[in-house]
Amino acid sequence: MSSDNDTVDHRVRADDGAVHSVWDNGLEPVCTVEPGDVVRFECRDATNGQLGPDATVADLATLDIDPVHPLTGPIAIEGAQPGDLLRIELLEIDHEGQGYTLVLPGEMELGLLADEFLEPALHVWNLEDGIAHFVDGIEIPIDPFPGVVGVAPAEGGAHSTFPPRSVGGNLDIKQLTAGSTLSLPVAVDGGLFSIGDGHAAQGDGEVCGTGIEAPITVTCRFEVRSDRSIGGPQFETTGPFTSTGRGEPMYGTTGIADDLMDASRQAIRQMIDHLHDERGLSRTEAYMLCSAAVDLKLNQVVNAPNWTVAAYLPERIFPESRRRSTRRA
Amino acid sequence: MSSDNDTVDHRVRADDGAVHSVWDNGLEPVCTVEPGDVVRFECRDATNGQLGPDATVADLATLDIDPVHPLTGPIAIEGAQPGDLLRIELLEIDHEGQGYTLVLPGEMELGLLADEFLEPALHVWNLEDGIAHFVDGIEIPIDPFPGVVGVAPAEGGAHSTFPPRSVGGNLDIKQLTAGSTLSLPVAVDGGLFSIGDGHAAQGDGEVCGTGIEAPITVTCRFEVRSDRSIGGPQFETTGPFTSTGRGEPMYGTTGIADDLMDASRQAIRQMIDHLHDERGLSRTEAYMLCSAAVDLKLNQVVNAPNWTVAAYLPERIFPESRRRSTRRA
Repeated sequence: MSSDNDTVDHRVRADDGAVHSVWDNGLEPVCTVEPGDVVRFECRDATNGQLGPDATVADLATLDIDPVHPLTGPIAIEGAQPGDLLRIELLEIDHEGQGYTLVLPGEMELGLLADEFLEPALHVWNLEDGIAHFVDGIEIPIDPFPGVVGVAPAEGGAHSTFPPRSVGGNLDIKQLTAGSTLSLPVAVDGGLFSIGDGHAAQGDGEVCGTGIEAPITVTCRFEVRSDRSIGGPQFETTGPFTSTGRGEPMYGTTGIADDLMDASRQAIRQMIDHLHDERGLSRTEAYMLCSAAVDLKLNQVVNAPNWTVAAYLPERIFPESRRRSTRRA
Repeated sequence: MSSDNDTVDHRVRADDGAVHSVWDNGLEPVCTVEPGDVVRFECRDATNGQLGPDATVADLATLDIDPVHPLTGPIAIEGAQPGDLLRIELLEIDHEGQGYTLVLPGEMELGLLADEFLEPALHVWNLEDGIAHFVDGIEIPIDPFPGVVGVAPAEGGAHSTFPPRSVGGNLDIKQLTAGSTLSLPVAVDGGLFSIGDGHAAQGDGEVCGTGIEAPITVTCRFEVRSDRSIGGPQFETTGPFTSTGRGEPMYGTTGIADDLMDASRQAIRQMIDHLHDERGLSRTEAYMLCSAAVDLKLNQVVNAPNWTVAAYLPERIFPESRRRSTRRA
């Protein structure tokens, strides 16, 4: 899918006026866009550029955590009101040829095994040929996505960018690649959308607390729906569902909670709602279909205090006439 | 892969002498096999044949729960000793053309949303053409697997078949299909291996408490390794990783605990051990690689009190010379 300069309605550059490190519904929008507009966001990497291609593990000792995560935005979407659904079509996502993964113990207590990995570590990835190169010839295909994508919460004041919330944020859902569409519940007038924390690739779970962190440019199209409400993020994607990228169209719902079982229950409840409201199944049929054909994955278990679990419904189990159209760039 | 009658060394029929509904290391083995032997197990469905093709939801009112799960075995493997690793190569898995999914609230409190779905429900699936047919033309590809596969626990006495344990059991890992290989830690002399609870398909999570329950016949080859110990089940599989079956070779480790975060940590710890011990990475490299390329999935969240989380490592990220050979029937 092409989104060359002619078709981009707005550009939001990652300059100081448009970069912020908290969620706050009192932030002034950097611009207001119309539904249907295509917007291109420059997004800094999670450390705000502190780790260049020559970075070493020694640089982690002086890493300033305050700017994490530098988000680009917010932008207002004309007409979006609390209770509406904001659809964000991710048209194109570009990286800049370099990324890093780090282990950062200490005050951040980042990572699923933060109490077991006490030494800082860093791997700088060369991404220039579209593949991420690790040690020993290990190669990971990349399919970049924004780790953080969300709208401002209803509650005023500054909120940390670390935990995801029902309005999105640090979801770390690696299937939010180009060609995917994310739906978020709007909580304040205009939505106040921000995006950042680019990952060139990530395992479901993001267990050491970082994926392949990389600056990215994301081109999105926005749409507002006033006729539907959702309780949390939902998305359409074609993957990747494995780390080597083979996949197929899926519809996803999410659970976000400080307990994984609660998050699992939320994700399945949302999927049952979806199957009932949008696909015409009874709630019991939906529950059984979830058990037979919906996959639960742990998207991230490190964004304390809230974890992300998602449920994946494959489109191909439906007769062709009843599938959702799922585009792929 | 063929395993016709000529190549099967032992047949274990699901007759009363070889069917049991508890784990107990005091059970007499029905036979003793040599490492390398091919064994074919007939496995009854989870309700022990109580729900035939004409079953209706009314039959659930009188369903006898006591026989769940009827397992076939145990068999002893010559020479297997506590601390050894038992490898079970799943050569061939056949179903009988019919299965069912049920919602069974009440005393069993079965299912992730047992407190919200209070009415029993049943769907009988016709599997005769190799596809599972649901309502409204919905079709689910099938790839049968045993929900329960394990060896006897070290602790004496009768243990429920519901929760999985470090010696396996009710794992409900839907990727344990034909062509996969499961490794289990041996806890007692001879291992005392049993198998059952066939599923024609299942969503990761098995959220209503049942997959597509079906009688199956499983043909396995056994191998004992005295030079390696593992703390819990590990497996090699080619999927399915989505409910429509597209997949690729993966190496899996599992976490089994009564808390999903604990289970996630276990699965990742095991994967780090694997990447360190078997693939030569440092533990920190392994941790980072997990974050970048290992997927955490919720295999089941219903086998109280223990849940299964698995971590999936794709073979294709390694240089070809360093991949594990992963066979596919």
